[in-house]
Formats: sequence, structure tokens, C-alpha cells
Amino acid sequence: MGTITLSFEEIKDCLKEILTLYGCPDDKADKVAVEMTRNSLEGVYTHGINRFARLIRNIGEGIVNPDADPVIIGRTGAVANVDGGLGLGITNAWFSMELAIQLAGEYGIGLVALRGTNHWLRAATYGYQACDAGMAAICFTNTIPNMPTWGAADSRIGNNPLVFAFPRKGGHLITDMAMSQFSYGALELARLEGRRMPIDAGFDSDGNLTKDPEAVIRSQRILPTGYWKGAALSFMLDIFAGTLSAGNTVSAVGALPGDEHGVSQVFVAIDYKKLVSEEQAEMIIEGAVSDLLGSKPAGENSRIIYTGQMTEEYRRQNLAAGIPVEEGVWKEILSLRRIRH
Amino acid sequence: MGTITLSFEEIKDCLKEILTLYGCPDDKADKVAVEMTRNSLEGVYTHGINRFARLIRNIGEGIVNPDADPVIIGRTGAVANVDGGLGLGITNAWFSMELAIQLAGEYGIGLVALRGTNHWLRAATYGYQACDAGMAAICFTNTIPNMPTWGAADSRIGNNPLVFAFPRKGGHLITDMAMSQFSYGALELARLEGRRMPIDAGFDSDGNLTKDPEAVIRSQRILPTGYWKGAALSFMLDIFAGTLSAGNTVSAVGALPGDEHGVSQVFVAIDYKKLVSEEQAEMIIEGAVSDLLGSKPAGENSRIIYTGQMTEEYRRQNLAAGIPVEEGVWKEILSLRRIRH
Repeated sequence: MGTITLSFEEIKDCLKEILTLYGCPDDKADKVAVEMTRNSLEGVYTHGINRFARLIRNIGEGIVNPDADPVIIGRTGAVANVDGGLGLGITNAWFSMELAIQLAGEYGIGLVALRGTNHWLRAATYGYQACDAGMAAICFTNTIPNMPTWGAADSRIGNNPLVFAFPRKGGHLITDMAMSQFSYGALELARLEGRRMPIDAGFDSDGNLTKDPEAVIRSQRILPTGYWKGAALSFMLDIFAGTLSAGNTVSAVGALPGDEHGVSQVFVAIDYKKLVSEEQAEMIIEGAVSDLLGSKPAGENSRIIYTGQMTEEYRRQNLAAGIPVEEGVWKEILSLRRIRH
Repeated sequence: MGTITLSFEEIKDCLKEILTLYGCPDDKADKVAVEMTRNSLEGVYTHGINRFARLIRNIGEGIVNPDADPVIIGRTGAVANVDGGLGLGITNAWFSMELAIQLAGEYGIGLVALRGTNHWLRAATYGYQACDAGMAAICFTNTIPNMPTWGAADSRIGNNPLVFAFPRKGGHLITDMAMSQFSYGALELARLEGRRMPIDAGFDSDGNLTKDPEAVIRSQRILPTGYWKGAALSFMLDIFAGTLSAGNTVSAVGALPGDEHGVSQVFVAIDYKKLVSEEQAEMIIEGAVSDLLGSKPAGENSRIIYTGQMTEEYRRQNLAAGIPVEEGVWKEILSLRRIRH
């Protein structure tokens, strides 16, 4: 099957209609549809439309409660705890970052720990949320156990995506990195296309580092980003998320039956304007960005970018040409609409 | 030359004596001597005694002002700015984390951004400082440009060490990771010993990934940890440190003449007990640690550890057997004492 292109509105309206059919209140359906469509618009297809059918399946399984509202269970000074009630991951996370932003507006920094929530889809979403509110942000989530720690054969740590974000007029600076070097999605795609990965992707069943996606999928031993370093950082992010939220760590998430649910997340917003004037901040940031972009390319095909730069490029391209959607993915989504009519 | 072993007190007293000779007030000389000796005691030799002569040289060059006190230049709510006056990196950083801990005690979280400071030696020091005060912590520093960004041939980003730390009765959980996969120190050592690195260590002069330390030292193209991911995170840490402190970014540090100085750092402390009871936190953490340690080892020689575990082992071993110090390093240190007598 091929790829079709659709407009933002067309996709968003369809997703929203289906979410509503599956019990999402109007405001939540709208938010989830907008953000998932935006993820595809901005080139993060794996966490956009491609994952929509799975979200609907999770609602059907009772893992995601579409009408649960997040509840603030504790708040003191600049820190707060939220229980997500196993509601929609996107709206729970958005609510929590919104609260962190509010706390940062008051105290200069705010931290919100969220427990009992679900997959937030694209981690960068909440970095952009903070940036659009004029705040810097750090946020991270834990996941099911999906990666072995360093020296291990079985998966007991998560790929726990981590975001650092800083607002910038000419395009926000943002990094959104999972703690695995490659996702299973990327490995699957390479396998289908008969490609090897450009760098080590994990271990084969004999314990040797390999670039062969097939061997890694078979062994289930994907590589932490930075080898032992990403394994350590992944574990720390889990300790922070599970403990600060009084929620599940990776191992507790893994003990729950069914698809991943009940994860823990941390949202930190920083009102940098309480520490430095906007003019000075802009000068410092633009100096760093232009110095970076002035790097000498390593080869003819090397391109130097700042982290976050591709978002704007994908957005422009997909707004002009339409958002590419795999025909099979779209067909499955349309079938979700038909089933309930 | 060989290796000798010395006691903690013997080393500490000698370092303190020299620091005093070079103009450090007694309390600062004591603190710096204790922490640098402790770094060697805990196995971080590169940032312990091995770097002491360089610190004294930097004092002599006027890059490090041994009697400068850090000054709080702004404070609002839970965030503050400190100017380090190009003082001693260790005492400036300690002061800043202490202030972050105090703010966290009041607001649940505190952030201190420090500018105009010097090398803080071992990043983990300030994580342990927070943990010993019962606080979780995140901290990071920028550095001179010492690594090319992804796709670049020249060094414009720093290796910007990052710490995540969480207190734990049975041994604090802590990760202290530079954004380069290997330090130049590690590459030099491997070259001397005629070893190749176990994984990609950087690029050769033709732009190919290589495990040959010699080739990487020649090209000066060390590898970001996690390839493109560490390059992106390094840049974000620099943006945070340089902007929040209204100080130097990596490129501005690189523009200063002489050895690295005038770096920027960020210290975040979190009073987790404002969000979760100590008992519950302990239960969550012990559950995660024991699950991790229960991992199936990948091979006969694989050892599964939690991040931070080696600190305690090195400490015990070196307390029992004495701290190993290279004879040449110790001779140079002793000569510093003689010169001024």
C-alpha cells in the first residue's frame, strides 16, 4: 500500500470524531486529536496518526479512561502531585505542565509529578507547551520495561524519554530523547527495508554489539543511548518519576497486565525571566545558536542544525504538501469510525 | 614510574598546605583539599589528586581567584543567581547547591544558576551534597568547546557533565555523565596502553567512526554520548546554564584566553519529602533497585550494578588499602610545596 496526503483539518476532525464515539468529552477529544495530528504534521509520525488505532484499542480495553480528570493530590510551595486516574495521557500531561508553568510564574520554578497516567505520545509536546508560555522546561516519563540495563540480557529499564526545552523567537530549542539509541519502530522499519543501522543498535543473541536490526529484534536487547550512560540515566529518570509522584516505577508498570499503562511523569517549568532579562537571554541564546550553526561540516553531505530545527521544517513542508499518511493506517482509522456508526 | 598508596589525611593535609601557600583562605583550602582527596578515594582519579597541579597552575595564572567569594546577585521565590567572581570552582558550586537546598527546604524545589565560576572538578560532588541533606538533585555545568556537534568537524559544544541524584539509605543513587562518550583522558590512557576502545570513540580524520584512540586524538573529533543525542543534550545544557545564569555559554567560554575558566552551572534541589513520605519513597526506591539488580546477566563476566554503586566500593577498598597515587603526580604536588617554602 502507498502513502496518501491529507490536510491537518481533515485528519484532526476524523480523529476527534472517533475519540468522541469512544467516550471522550469534547474538550479532551479536541486536544488529543489536535496534538496527535500535530505530531504527524511535525514529522513525528510514530507518535502521531500511526499510533491512533492503538490509543482507541487501549480505550476499548479499559486501560485508558477517556473521561477521567487529573486530580491535584498534594501541593506545597512550588511543587505538586497529580493523580491521572488512568485518563488520557496527552490531557493529563498537558494539565500537569500547565500547573508547573503556573507555579513557575509564582516561584520562578515549578515541579509537578504525575502518577497513574498513560502514554503522553510525543514528549516534546510539553516542552513546546512551556516554551509557548515563555518558560524553559525539563520533563520526562517512565515506560514499561523495554531495554536491558548495562550488562543484562533481560529488559528491566525503560526508554524513558527526556525533554529539555528553552523558548526562542526564531524557533524553540528543544531536545526530546528516548534513552534507547533506536526505537523498536526504527528497527522494524530498517528490517522491512533490508537496511542495517548506521551505528550499533543493540546486541545479538550471542551478546555481541550489532548493527543488524533483525538480530536485535530477535534478542530484544536494544542499546541504551550512550551505552552504559543511557542505562544509568534511564534508571535515575525512573527513580525521580516513580518516587516524586508516589507512583509506579518501570518495574511496577511492567507488572501491570496488558498494554503499557499507569506510568509516572515529571514536569519542571522555569520562568527564566525572573533570572535574566529577555533581551539578555535572547543575546546569549542567539550567540550560542549562531556559533553552533557556524560549525565546519564534517563532509559534503553533513548538515549542521540546532536541536528542534527540524520541527519547523517538517511543519512547513507538510502544511504545503499535506501530511503523509500510510494508506493502511488511514484505512484502519476510518474503520474505527464505521464500526460504531 | 609506579604507583604509591597514601592515606586520606596525608593527601588532604598536603593539598591544604599548598592551597594555603597559594592564597586560599583556611576554610576554602580545607574544603577543596577534602573534596579533591575524596574524589581519588572514591575512584575518580582524573578529578581528584591528578588534577591538583593544574588547579594550582590556574591560581598562578590568575584564572582562579582563591579568595573570591560567591555573591547572590538575584533572588526571587525559589530561584537565585550567583556570581562566582572566578573563585574556586568547588567552593562556588558547593555554595550554590547549599542555596538550592535551602530554597528547596522552603518551596519544595530550588534552582540556583551560577556564572563566572571555575571547574567544579567532580560533578557528582554536588549530587552527594544534596543527597546528604536529604534532597534529590539535578545539576550540570558547561565547559570549553571540546567536542564537535553532530555532523561537524570542529569543536563547538562542551562535554557539559550532568548529574541526577536521589538519596538512599543503602547508598545514594547518582549518575554523573559527561556528554562525550569518552574523555580525552580515557583516550590518552588507552593510547599509552596500546588498547583500542571497546566501542566507537569518535571519528578519524576521514570522518569514519573508529575505536582507535590515536585516530580520535589526532582528529580531535570525540564522540557525543549517544551520537546525535548527546550532541543535542549538550547544547541544551549549555543554553540552560548560560542563559539562566546570565553568564557564558560554551562559545563564550571558548573565547576567553588561557585555560578553561568563567563557566556557568545550574543547581536544582528537590525536597521530595514534600511530595511523598519517606517510608513510601524508600519502598518505591528499594523496589526499583532490587528489580534492577535482579536482571539476568548477559554473560559470565557481566555484573549488574545500580548507578552510584561503585562509589561505595572504591571508598571501602581505598580506605582499607590506601589511595593509589601515581608517583609522578605526587612528586609534582610535593614540588609545589617546596617552591614556596
